[in-house]
Amino acid sequence: MSKRSFPLPEVYRLLEPGPVVLVTTAAKGETDIMAMSWHMMMEFEPPLVGCIVSGRNHSFDLLRASKECVINIPTVELAPKVVRCGNTSGRRVDKFERFGLAPVASSRVGAPRIEECYANLECRIADARWVDRYNMFVLEVVKAWIDPSVKKPRTIHHAGRGAFVVDGETIRLRSKAK
Amino acid sequence: MSKRSFPLPEVYRLLEPGPVVLVTTAAKGETDIMAMSWHMMMEFEPPLVGCIVSGRNHSFDLLRASKECVINIPTVELAPKVVRCGNTSGRRVDKFERFGLAPVASSRVGAPRIEECYANLECRIADARWVDRYNMFVLEVVKAWIDPSVKKPRTIHHAGRGAFVVDGETIRLRSKAK
Repeated sequence: MSKRSFPLPEVYRLLEPGPVVLVTTAAKGETDIMAMSWHMMMEFEPPLVGCIVSGRNHSFDLLRASKECVINIPTVELAPKVVRCGNTSGRRVDKFERFGLAPVASSRVGAPRIEECYANLECRIADARWVDRYNMFVLEVVKAWIDPSVKKPRTIHHAGRGAFVVDGETIRLRSKAK
Repeated sequence: MSKRSFPLPEVYRLLEPGPVVLVTTAAKGETDIMAMSWHMMMEFEPPLVGCIVSGRNHSFDLLRASKECVINIPTVELAPKVVRCGNTSGRRVDKFERFGLAPVASSRVGAPRIEECYANLECRIADARWVDRYNMFVLEVVKAWIDPSVKKPRTIHHAGRGAFVVDGETIRLRSKAK
């Protein structure tokens, strides 16, 4: 293999691609929806999720104020709406109304779930100590929902600059990992 | 959409799927290779990557001792070897030799790069304060390599219990996101 140097600021395009999610928040009579790709699992049980939320997002303020959110997982059919959510600020727009997404009440948190997403994870902030340092929140998933009729959800993975990789085939290997 | 409750311990199967990577480490005359899926970008520049490494892994000791590693990104052709790396402990086995992977010298860190991976990210630990709390390391990518001949790398995404989702088609949308 002949390799070339790869620019450091582009590294995120290699590592980021987990599923793009839509984070919903509610506080002070407002709701918001934010597209997010910088997240990782941190613990199996209780499920802990680390994520990075820019302080420039309206959702950052609502998340910090309410200490709760929902992580909604869209499939490729919703990709155009995901991008529109990402391109717009919730300070100026009610994204549910503007983009035709249906808010439904959550069972454990104040933020609404997005009906059209095949899975919803209701979360509470478990650790905010690295918010000032890295804009990092540690979330605990306190209730999870899935649409059992969606047998093979094709999620999307942000690869930067408008490119999204869609889930392809699933292969099965003899892994001992959980 | 009719939904059912989804078990909390299975939530990781929904959120985890970023690309599976192989982390290489070297310390005390030993090297190791570890498969990893719990990682996220934390900053664009310098690129910071957060990751969770179980203390049961031999790589945990080598990473902590050397403060360096390489994140190697495999494509689907390497999936069987990725799984074998994940199923084996580096305490007992030289994984490079056993699985036919070629170590090549890195330019900025002591850990070797894996030749067969289409990209390699040389990393140093930037913040170890959450190692005791969450087994979380913040890595700074100090040098990155890519094989320019691999035009459409098909990475794999761990979906739990031996299932791996392979990259499918790429779609392009008018996203304002970087």
